[in-house]
Amino acid sequence: MANLGFIGLGIMGKPMAGHLIKGGHTLFLKSRRSVPEELLAAGGKSCATAKDVAQKADVIFLCVPDTPDVDLVLFGKDGVAEGLAPGKIVVDCSTISAQATQGFAKKIEEKGCTFLDAPISGGETGAKNATLVFMAGGPEASFETVKPYFQLMGKTIVRIGENGAGQICKSANQIVVALNIEAVAEALVFAAKAGADPAKVREALMGGAGASRILELHGERMIKRTFNPGFRIELHQKDLNLVLQNAKALKVALPNTANCQELFNSAAAHGDSLLDHSALVKVLERLANHEVAKG
Amino acid sequence: MANLGFIGLGIMGKPMAGHLIKGGHTLFLKSRRSVPEELLAAGGKSCATAKDVAQKADVIFLCVPDTPDVDLVLFGKDGVAEGLAPGKIVVDCSTISAQATQGFAKKIEEKGCTFLDAPISGGETGAKNATLVFMAGGPEASFETVKPYFQLMGKTIVRIGENGAGQICKSANQIVVALNIEAVAEALVFAAKAGADPAKVREALMGGAGASRILELHGERMIKRTFNPGFRIELHQKDLNLVLQNAKALKVALPNTANCQELFNSAAAHGDSLLDHSALVKVLERLANHEVAKG
Repeated sequence: MANLGFIGLGIMGKPMAGHLIKGGHTLFLKSRRSVPEELLAAGGKSCATAKDVAQKADVIFLCVPDTPDVDLVLFGKDGVAEGLAPGKIVVDCSTISAQATQGFAKKIEEKGCTFLDAPISGGETGAKNATLVFMAGGPEASFETVKPYFQLMGKTIVRIGENGAGQICKSANQIVVALNIEAVAEALVFAAKAGADPAKVREALMGGAGASRILELHGERMIKRTFNPGFRIELHQKDLNLVLQNAKALKVALPNTANCQELFNSAAAHGDSLLDHSALVKVLERLANHEVAKG
Repeated sequence: MANLGFIGLGIMGKPMAGHLIKGGHTLFLKSRRSVPEELLAAGGKSCATAKDVAQKADVIFLCVPDTPDVDLVLFGKDGVAEGLAPGKIVVDCSTISAQATQGFAKKIEEKGCTFLDAPISGGETGAKNATLVFMAGGPEASFETVKPYFQLMGKTIVRIGENGAGQICKSANQIVVALNIEAVAEALVFAAKAGADPAKVREALMGGAGASRILELHGERMIKRTFNPGFRIELHQKDLNLVLQNAKALKVALPNTANCQELFNSAAAHGDSLLDHSALVKVLERLANHEVAKG
């Protein structure tokens, strides 16, 4: 059984850390707010600083909101870097910039340690049910060491390549998810305004080439009007912003992703930033002046 | 066992008629070209005209390319309409205009018969394996009569609504399929140019919210460069043309569908009209000046 650290115990981090404790490991915990009672009751140990976590744990997981947060936790005062000793592994499960990730990895390696970017997909449900996808970038040996811990928290664990490749894969994921939501929204608004029952259209499309996780889950949300998050529009905007900045740097044209980001801007204009990203359908509905009927 | 007709024995119609024969029914057959030997050997009966088919069969299936073809087969000289007697059912499995469909249905009803629009999805493989999706519009009683025959040819059979609703559903299907292909193309070109292995990206995405039939099948085609059809770009252009015309009439804005049709135009400009629609990725690759690596 290993000494593991977990920094960032929010919607995702809390259940993830819980699975590691249930797996029999000793967890050293730190969060912006106080460590949840539940995790302490299960045996988790609260630490005063990220440095403290890094001193006590051999593998340190991070799950925080954005690039500057990772920077601060790793390299700020009393941060992870100050507590590291050679041989330790830092695993960042946040969704952040691939370029920044490569810089962070280099600085961690200078301490004689290794770094994995391992952003996740699957949302709160995936975190709770331990069915997350881990898209990892970094040294293969470190990946193999950490894999058994990933397996306690997820079910699809793929090493994409070197540092940064995990974040690139997460960007690809966010492109597909956004565009599949937009696709289902266009199809259901079209069908509804033409007088067809959107619930039956969804059922038929699930039998063929149009079948997708998004049609299944978010299509149902659009029909039943259940727009409580889930994954908030403002977070998907943040992720597409990363994607589009990166696409500019890489010289890759992403016409429908760019368009989709504009449609999210319209969702925000109508006060829907905090709704689930399936509420993108409301933008298409306003454009068509017609609401997808309740299924 | 019933007397059934089948008009249009192309890539889709031929295996479909074959399943009906195997189901024990007597098939009266007509095609632009001569009736395939295989179907005659299995017991199918060749007819000289569509009128002839309509006289001998109680349920007459059609599977032809486009709206004018359906018009000609139904209402041209020696067409189906001339051979109908009250109580017969005409089932159109072609992908055509929803508006024209409603007109055809009315004219068939004037003969004391009923009409079902029942476009299909699933391609040649679905036709051969009897796993097609049928999206039907028309009277419920006629749908129930025809359902056992649909079940010999397909596995997802949904009555969407009245006449035309089947075609609307097929349009919704073609929107989702086109936009999901475009989504996967953007994601894989982005990932490839950023240096990530597209095959591993596809594998990871299949574990999460980005999972789709298109990512599975067409994503693999993009990586392995297998662009033999499948479903040709020129046919998807025809279908999106129907969708966009209909969207204009209905006053529905479909920004990404319209954009996708423009990208198909670029595919055509580079001589790719006869390739599988997954070859849309080549347009994105030219825009990015980078090819998705072979997986």
